[in-house]
Amino acid sequence: MMAKQVEQDQLYIGVDGGGTKCRATIYSVKHGVLGTGLGGPANPLHGLERTLESIMVSTQTALQDAGLRVEQVHELNAGLGLAGVNLPALYDKIMQWEHPFKQMFLTTDLHTACIGAHEGKDGAVIITGTGSCGFALVNGESVNYGGHGFAQGDMGSGAWMGLEAVKAVLLDLDKLGASTSLSKAFLHHFNANDAMGIAEQMAGQPSSGYAKLARYVIEHAKQNDPIALSIVTSGADYISRLARRLLELNPPRLSMIGGLSEPLLNWLDRDIAEQVSLPKQPPEMGAIYFAIQSVEQELLKANI
Amino acid sequence: MMAKQVEQDQLYIGVDGGGTKCRATIYSVKHGVLGTGLGGPANPLHGLERTLESIMVSTQTALQDAGLRVEQVHELNAGLGLAGVNLPALYDKIMQWEHPFKQMFLTTDLHTACIGAHEGKDGAVIITGTGSCGFALVNGESVNYGGHGFAQGDMGSGAWMGLEAVKAVLLDLDKLGASTSLSKAFLHHFNANDAMGIAEQMAGQPSSGYAKLARYVIEHAKQNDPIALSIVTSGADYISRLARRLLELNPPRLSMIGGLSEPLLNWLDRDIAEQVSLPKQPPEMGAIYFAIQSVEQELLKANI
Repeated sequence: MMAKQVEQDQLYIGVDGGGTKCRATIYSVKHGVLGTGLGGPANPLHGLERTLESIMVSTQTALQDAGLRVEQVHELNAGLGLAGVNLPALYDKIMQWEHPFKQMFLTTDLHTACIGAHEGKDGAVIITGTGSCGFALVNGESVNYGGHGFAQGDMGSGAWMGLEAVKAVLLDLDKLGASTSLSKAFLHHFNANDAMGIAEQMAGQPSSGYAKLARYVIEHAKQNDPIALSIVTSGADYISRLARRLLELNPPRLSMIGGLSEPLLNWLDRDIAEQVSLPKQPPEMGAIYFAIQSVEQELLKANI
Repeated sequence: MMAKQVEQDQLYIGVDGGGTKCRATIYSVKHGVLGTGLGGPANPLHGLERTLESIMVSTQTALQDAGLRVEQVHELNAGLGLAGVNLPALYDKIMQWEHPFKQMFLTTDLHTACIGAHEGKDGAVIITGTGSCGFALVNGESVNYGGHGFAQGDMGSGAWMGLEAVKAVLLDLDKLGASTSLSKAFLHHFNANDAMGIAEQMAGQPSSGYAKLARYVIEHAKQNDPIALSIVTSGADYISRLARRLLELNPPRLSMIGGLSEPLLNWLDRDIAEQVSLPKQPPEMGAIYFAIQSVEQELLKANI
C-alpha cells in the first residue's frame, strides 16, 4: 500500500489516440476525474507530427477543463495509448519526444482499451469499428490477433462490411453476381445510374469511406437480403473465432468496443455472445490505469 | 475504295497508354510498320501531365526508330487508347490538348485492345493482368463489364488473387482460418516471422504490389493447396461469367490479353476456353486501326 500513498499526491493524464480524434482525461487519485479534453487525429502511423500536436491540444483543453494552469502540465504523469507502437521503431520515436509531462508511459491503444474496459484488471477486448482486432492480457501475458488493416484484414469491421457490400453490388449491377437489395440502396446513396458511377466514387477511398456503408449492410441483413446476410454472418463468424482465440488465455472478462459491437452481438455464436460484458471504463481511463501501474512499478523498483 | 487511296499517302501513329508504360507504333499504309517507341506511365487517371509527356516521349522515339524527322510529327494521324477516357470530363481534357499531330483520335485502351486483337474487326476481349475487365464491340455497339478497380472489383486479376492470398495467409497465421501452403511461401517471400510482418509490408501497397504475389497462388493451386485452388477457381469462374456476358453480344471472336490470360485459361469453363482465340495484333496496332477508321469516316462525311 506504500505505492497507493504516493499516488494520492499525483496527477495523471490518460490519452487515447485515434484515427479521427484524441481524447484526454486528467485524474487525481484523491478527487477522481478533474477534466477532459479533445484533440485532432492521433494515429502515429498516419503522421507523427500531427499525432504529437493532437496530444498537446487534448492535454491543454483537459487542463483548462480541470481548472488547472497551463504550466501544471509538468506535474502530470501521462499514460498514452497509441496505434502502431507495437512496432519498436515507432515506440522509440515517440519516447524520444521532448514531452512536457512529469513522466510519460507509452503503450498500444489496444492495451489501454483493454485495461480500461476491465477497470485496470486482466481481460480481453474485441474492437469492431472501422477496423477490427482482438487483444487479451492475463497475468502479464498479452496476445493480439487480427488488426492487419484495410483491405487485407479486419474482417467483420465496418470497412470490411462496406467493401464486401460494394463488391457484391458491382457484381450485381454488371449481372455477374447474385441480386441484392443493397444495389438499389447504393445507387440511391451515391446518386449513381450504374456500377461505374459507384466504382468511381469509391475508388481510392480510405477504410473510413467504406465503413460508412456498414449500416446499410446491417439494415439489409435484418431484412433478410441474402447477400447482406451472408456478409454479416461471415463477419460475425470471424469475430466469434477471434473471441475463441482470446478465450484460450482464460481472461476473467471479455468486452466488445466500437460502433459495430452492439449490432454484431446478435449475430455472434450464442455461447460467445453470453460471455460478452460491457466495458467498465473508456480507453482514456485505461491509459490512466496504465500510468498509475507504471508509476507503482517504478516506485517498487526504487524501493528494492 | 476512295478512302483507301487517300490512306496510302498517310502516316499513322498508334499509342497504347498504360499504368507503367506507353507504347507507340508508326505505320504507313504503303509500307506497314515503320518504327516503334516506348515512354513512361500514361494512365490519365494517375496524372494528366505525366501521360501527355509519356505520349510525346514514345512518339519521339518511334519517329527516330522510323528514320523520320522530328518535325514529321505534324504529318502523323494519331490514334490514342487511354484508360479512363470513357469519363467525358477526362476525354474533353485530353481533346483540348494542343497536340502536335496532324489529327488526333481518342478512345479507351479497352477499345484499342479489342480492335487490335481482332485486326480492326468486331470482337470481344477479356483483360486479366494487374486488373481485369471485359469489352466487346459488335456492329458499332459496345459493352464494358468489370474493371471497377482494386480492391472493390477486378476479380480474377493478379491484384485480386494477391489480395485474397494475403487475406487467407493472415487468417492462417493467426489460427483464425484454414491452413494453406501459401503461408510458408509468403513468410519466406517477405522474410517475416508472423502475420504482422507480412501485413506491415503490404499495408498501403497499390494493386501492382498485390499482383506480384499472383504467381504463388497459381503455383500452389497447381500443387492442389485447397486455399490457392479456391482462389484460382473462383477467379476463373468470374472470368467465365464475364465471357458469357460478352458472348451475349455475339462477337465473332473472343481473345484474352494480359499476364494472367495463359495461366487462367486452364481453369475456365471448358466451353469458354474453347472459344478463346489468340489476339492477332497488340493494342498499339488497334490504336492505328482506330485512327485509320476515324480518318475514313471523316472523308466519307466530307464527300456526302
